[in-house]
Amino acid sequence: MSNAPDRAVPFSGLTRLDHVGIACRDLDAAVEFYRSTYGFEVEHEEVNEEQGVREAMLRINGTDDGGATYLQLLEPTRPDSPVGKFLERNGEGVHHIAFGTGDVAASAAEVGGRGVRVLDAAPRRGTAGSQIVFLHPKDCGGVLTELVQSTR
Amino acid sequence: MSNAPDRAVPFSGLTRLDHVGIACRDLDAAVEFYRSTYGFEVEHEEVNEEQGVREAMLRINGTDDGGATYLQLLEPTRPDSPVGKFLERNGEGVHHIAFGTGDVAASAAEVGGRGVRVLDAAPRRGTAGSQIVFLHPKDCGGVLTELVQSTR
Repeated sequence: MSNAPDRAVPFSGLTRLDHVGIACRDLDAAVEFYRSTYGFEVEHEEVNEEQGVREAMLRINGTDDGGATYLQLLEPTRPDSPVGKFLERNGEGVHHIAFGTGDVAASAAEVGGRGVRVLDAAPRRGTAGSQIVFLHPKDCGGVLTELVQSTR
Repeated sequence: MSNAPDRAVPFSGLTRLDHVGIACRDLDAAVEFYRSTYGFEVEHEEVNEEQGVREAMLRINGTDDGGATYLQLLEPTRPDSPVGKFLERNGEGVHHIAFGTGDVAASAAEVGGRGVRVLDAAPRRGTAGSQIVFLHPKDCGGVLTELVQSTR
């Protein structure tokens, strides 16, 4: 696939909506819902013990920075994980949104320099070997926001 | 721009994540946050009196079906509108996600035939002359989901 960028990159270096993270109680049921209702297929599945989630990435479309946009379905592996606590408070639904960048450390520094609290002092491991940071939702209009540098 | 589809269209006809709708109390402040923090610019702004919202569309990236993915910032024009009630209950944050299709009536029929309640008997007017339907969030894992046929 070749999707050459057709526009200027914003100063933050964020070039796509990488994924929408959705909290669910039963990953297999959620995967089956998105497959049988819409025809979206799982491209990748993994357990991230550090974050306490079992997750599946469903590819929705390719993007003009050469990446893609996914739904990320997240089931907690323990009730005291961030997603477990989210489910307890809010029930199932959208948990976060993630913007893709070619350099997550640079984007995090850029955004942090504008007064948004970056929750990770250094990028940590996200899905499929990606590097991620989270931004404080109170600084982002109530939206838990992730920046992700993908290896895909 | 030419972004030819490079994959099979899912049976639902949904070919992209069109936008993420975000509820905010002050549209101008939200627009300024996304501009000054990330460099995302407003492509379109309008008032939809039927839905009781003032809204701005910020383009994030192009998609391989020839469309694009946006953030849709939504400020209620009255407290008893759907977005007004959402803010009252939940505060600011992600309100819905929207999938793009070339034929919203066909996609709605397809999805409705699989047991998901379609909240609009017929497509109604969305942003910039688009045609939209909403799906019941209780049938979609807690995610208020829109299907949109764009004129863009």
